[in-house]
Amino acid sequence: MTSGVCFPRGFSASGVAAGLKASGKKDLALVVNTGSAPSAAGVFTTNRVVAEPVKYTRKIMETSVPTVVILNSGNANAATGARGYADVEETVAALAAQMQIDENQIAVCSTGVIGEYMDTETLTKGIPSLVAGLSSEGALDAATAIMTTDTVPKEVQVETGGWRIGGMAKGAGMLAPALATMLCVVTTDAIVEGGALQAALENAVERSFNRLDTDGCMSTNDTVLLLSSGESGVQPDPEAFGAELEKLLTELAGMLRDDAEGAEHFVDITVKGAQSEEAAVEVARSVSRSNLVKTAIFGNDPNWGRILSQVGTVPTSVARFDPSKVNISINGVMICRGGGIGDPKEDLDLSASKRVQIEIDLAAGESSATVFTTDLTHGYVHENSAYTT
Amino acid sequence: MTSGVCFPRGFSASGVAAGLKASGKKDLALVVNTGSAPSAAGVFTTNRVVAEPVKYTRKIMETSVPTVVILNSGNANAATGARGYADVEETVAALAAQMQIDENQIAVCSTGVIGEYMDTETLTKGIPSLVAGLSSEGALDAATAIMTTDTVPKEVQVETGGWRIGGMAKGAGMLAPALATMLCVVTTDAIVEGGALQAALENAVERSFNRLDTDGCMSTNDTVLLLSSGESGVQPDPEAFGAELEKLLTELAGMLRDDAEGAEHFVDITVKGAQSEEAAVEVARSVSRSNLVKTAIFGNDPNWGRILSQVGTVPTSVARFDPSKVNISINGVMICRGGGIGDPKEDLDLSASKRVQIEIDLAAGESSATVFTTDLTHGYVHENSAYTT
Repeated sequence: MTSGVCFPRGFSASGVAAGLKASGKKDLALVVNTGSAPSAAGVFTTNRVVAEPVKYTRKIMETSVPTVVILNSGNANAATGARGYADVEETVAALAAQMQIDENQIAVCSTGVIGEYMDTETLTKGIPSLVAGLSSEGALDAATAIMTTDTVPKEVQVETGGWRIGGMAKGAGMLAPALATMLCVVTTDAIVEGGALQAALENAVERSFNRLDTDGCMSTNDTVLLLSSGESGVQPDPEAFGAELEKLLTELAGMLRDDAEGAEHFVDITVKGAQSEEAAVEVARSVSRSNLVKTAIFGNDPNWGRILSQVGTVPTSVARFDPSKVNISINGVMICRGGGIGDPKEDLDLSASKRVQIEIDLAAGESSATVFTTDLTHGYVHENSAYTT
Repeated sequence: MTSGVCFPRGFSASGVAAGLKASGKKDLALVVNTGSAPSAAGVFTTNRVVAEPVKYTRKIMETSVPTVVILNSGNANAATGARGYADVEETVAALAAQMQIDENQIAVCSTGVIGEYMDTETLTKGIPSLVAGLSSEGALDAATAIMTTDTVPKEVQVETGGWRIGGMAKGAGMLAPALATMLCVVTTDAIVEGGALQAALENAVERSFNRLDTDGCMSTNDTVLLLSSGESGVQPDPEAFGAELEKLLTELAGMLRDDAEGAEHFVDITVKGAQSEEAAVEVARSVSRSNLVKTAIFGNDPNWGRILSQVGTVPTSVARFDPSKVNISINGVMICRGGGIGDPKEDLDLSASKRVQIEIDLAAGESSATVFTTDLTHGYVHENSAYTT
């Protein structure tokens, strides 16, 4: 059935096992925009160490509208220099020849190990079957082919007002702001011109993927591409489109968080009463990065002292608040009141719920924001110490 | 024998078990400056959530020179508000009465659980035996009484040019800049007036404890006190005194790092070729906080891609460098050259050495700095998830 990136009209996709993964699992994906009036938008990692496919795709999008995206897992092609960039060009040339299209229609995304040269010979050998497999029902294969340590493929779709948006993403490790480490392709059949598409994507990413922070580590490969086919014939109100897009990307971000490496608790950190949304995000982000908070939650310990202590590390220049006015609630129990001891933690049993809602009230304004994170577990340490990723 | 804080002339100390620790171990310490020309200096946490004893001690040091320091483990007396502050005052009153001294001569330090009221009745019951036990040979008892999850007491001493410095510290968890979470009392019999003593302490702390970052978590109780008795009769050159003090505090910082919770590798991250010492510190600190780098080292994986990726997250406003010029060496093997693949990692066996030297050359200047950290292990997750600390 049509799902994910193939849910909107005017898209086909495929996914195959080219042999980049030692496991023999699917590792090469293709998404094609067959619409008559295509447009495209992209958001990329802000890491100063940028993978070669990101450099390539950013460059071609300055001058052309990609309608074809090829994605591989198994190798990030990052920190591979000129040879890595030439590997991207070789991949593009092979795909362009196979599909008989211009090279500048092709965007490239890679995910996997950093610092190893791409086996481009193996990758390009997979291209004929990849192209042959293109179908409006190939979205799930594509979503499966971009998985790394993900345990499940991740697809979303929505239809409203006669137009559709669909998407796929992979995440799992190295999830941090300025994009979780991830590849994401979003498609729509709504008619949205390039500039509006880019603005909508940047705004939606800021409030979805950039609010996800499972281990504070920013990747070299983060890429979110949004392709429009225009095949619905409908030009939606920009606000309505933006709202649906944000909802969908937030749903995808939640899927990434819930599949994060080794996570046993899924923690929403909401900061309210902040002087600005930015201040709220920074305080929530700071708490989401405290290993002491994250290990306490793993141990089912509602250790509000560690939360308050972490809040206190945020400089006044970033967030104004009076520590003696801060309230902290965990799953609805106000365990810290006025910067001190609140309701008894005995009322809280974190072992009973994988979902943990931390609410921090700074009592310093009207703004709020939520950052999504996880606990820090033996599973995380094991996955990230036992394997090179 | 005389050691640690009692190594310099004009100091006595003691340590007893007052009953604050359920384990029944020593939990109350006293250090007394008996010198005829006492001076004192202090550095405290920059956390905005400040423990009550820190508030108290900062305040009295504005107007007087403390000659007596009482320290307890088992309870941090943090996030305890007005009641917590009153508990400090009650402790001071009891000690002043017992020693027949002015209350403003007394400084107070606490470490332990955050967010629980102090059992002041139990604490004050320990004061008579604490005072009775004062001796020039009591330093080790004092150093033992301030331990929390520390596995060993930590003492240092040095003699040069006819004057001495000694010290004790506790650390273990929550080690981060703006002081490792720690209590530290340093004593000297050199003649150094208050202003010079404060300047020397701030400079030495900046280059020792503030370069220690095992889990990025800053405490509410961090306190370093430096007491001078003047009993050597020698007034050393300020530079010579500062250099010896920095050496001693760096040695103590190393002891804290080497006793950090759950650590299996001890990692020195040196950044060189930076445009300034500050930039070097910030890049090194960023790498020291990457859970992906720390778990890789736990797994004996010299994963330079994760290191380079973390370096890339440091904004240009903080450190200027060209990612394609960055070299990374681990234990002398240049595993990343010019931002790309360097010498084979097969030459590296991290399982063979608990000591890991990471050297990052930004090729952007002449400055360098080292941050001291550890790996992220199952032991860390266990200690910090299994116990409220």
